[in-house]
Amino acid sequence: MPKCDARHPRLFVDVPLSAGIGIALDRDQTNYVGNVLRLAAGDMVLLFNGREGEWLAALAGRKRPDRADIVNQIRLQDRLPAVDYIFAPLKHARLDYMVQKAVEMGAGSLQPVTTQRTQMTRVNTERMRANVIEAAEQCGILSLAEVHQPLPLGRWLGQRDAGDLLVFCDEEAPHSDPKAALASAGAIQSRINVLIGPEGGFSEDERNALLRQPKVVRLSLGPRILRADTAAVSALTLVQAVLGDWCKS
Amino acid sequence: MPKCDARHPRLFVDVPLSAGIGIALDRDQTNYVGNVLRLAAGDMVLLFNGREGEWLAALAGRKRPDRADIVNQIRLQDRLPAVDYIFAPLKHARLDYMVQKAVEMGAGSLQPVTTQRTQMTRVNTERMRANVIEAAEQCGILSLAEVHQPLPLGRWLGQRDAGDLLVFCDEEAPHSDPKAALASAGAIQSRINVLIGPEGGFSEDERNALLRQPKVVRLSLGPRILRADTAAVSALTLVQAVLGDWCKS
Repeated sequence: MPKCDARHPRLFVDVPLSAGIGIALDRDQTNYVGNVLRLAAGDMVLLFNGREGEWLAALAGRKRPDRADIVNQIRLQDRLPAVDYIFAPLKHARLDYMVQKAVEMGAGSLQPVTTQRTQMTRVNTERMRANVIEAAEQCGILSLAEVHQPLPLGRWLGQRDAGDLLVFCDEEAPHSDPKAALASAGAIQSRINVLIGPEGGFSEDERNALLRQPKVVRLSLGPRILRADTAAVSALTLVQAVLGDWCKS
Repeated sequence: MPKCDARHPRLFVDVPLSAGIGIALDRDQTNYVGNVLRLAAGDMVLLFNGREGEWLAALAGRKRPDRADIVNQIRLQDRLPAVDYIFAPLKHARLDYMVQKAVEMGAGSLQPVTTQRTQMTRVNTERMRANVIEAAEQCGILSLAEVHQPLPLGRWLGQRDAGDLLVFCDEEAPHSDPKAALASAGAIQSRINVLIGPEGGFSEDERNALLRQPKVVRLSLGPRILRADTAAVSALTLVQAVLGDWCKS
């Protein structure tokens, strides 16, 4: 996948895209291109809808740009890595941040799970989706990560595909080489579920249930304590670098 | 290094520590333990000063706790990894965040460098130090990462130790396996300088100057664009996992 052309702002629009048509921008987008970026009619932007690749378009409108006229397609649609990010939700700003980071790291789906020590049980999935869109816009990503409704950990374990690899980031895991632990999973044909627990840790019952999963790698993220949003980037880096699309050329 | 006991709040105090003495808390700490955490006299905290390990102490004070009476030492002092984090500064909240993340990931020093495309040239190093302390307190870290005054990239290159390994995170690097790139550096006896550039990228002149350094690894951080704070965690994860203290048991 080529990196996108970072010179033009990128906008997500949830409508079909094709050459020659004009796309109406919503109020937030009009404000963003006109007032924040101070662009004018004739300036170029990139549009994507998560399904049909990326398109070059020219801003248009009378006073301030409120439309984008599509010129041509510049990237074909691709697929996100088969990596799911499963996490205990955090509060507000830190959840926003964690969602954005997981998207930047190429997560294909986001699944909040509540645990015995989770502080938050209600999760604003609309807000999660807004953060997915923002990160995809900023980071040249063409597909939107799927946002799932929160589930209790036990229910998620009950319904996950037992053929998927579970990468369990366990702060109680004995300190050992995380590259080697991931490499021991061998060639992966299935999806990879990367699980980061609550900052209070998993209970013993929960840990036992996780370690009983059929294909599980217990990952140690080094000798220091990491906050959950840091652990997200760190674990996804290792998964992408050992099993994912960072190690392929 | 064992993980710290996360049950007790940790406070950095810049005074000598020894068993039996009382340490006065400053106004922020008094507010934090009394009003935020709602602790009372007799509750336990952990104290560290960056030089003499970690100490268990009992809060004391008449109305609200404003002192901590040291009981005994519970961890000996250790040293931070010989990893320096060199970065183009970001604005305000994102710089706070990046500094905290670099500390969590075990950076031993933080060096802001200004480049041709750096947006920020003034850096509040006092605020950086406050973020270093906050991250160390929260993540069980015993030593404070050193905060250096900002330097232009060229001056930093001129004064760095030519025997150190430079890990140059280059978004223009051909996409290739980052683990292999780092492993090619072999056993590292020197310090490791991890460099993340500005979000606008390095200029060609700057890139050439970096690639002329005697011991340099050019690192690709995957096929997607990463924001600078994400790249920080990601690059430090790879360095710690391949060359640093994450792969040692």
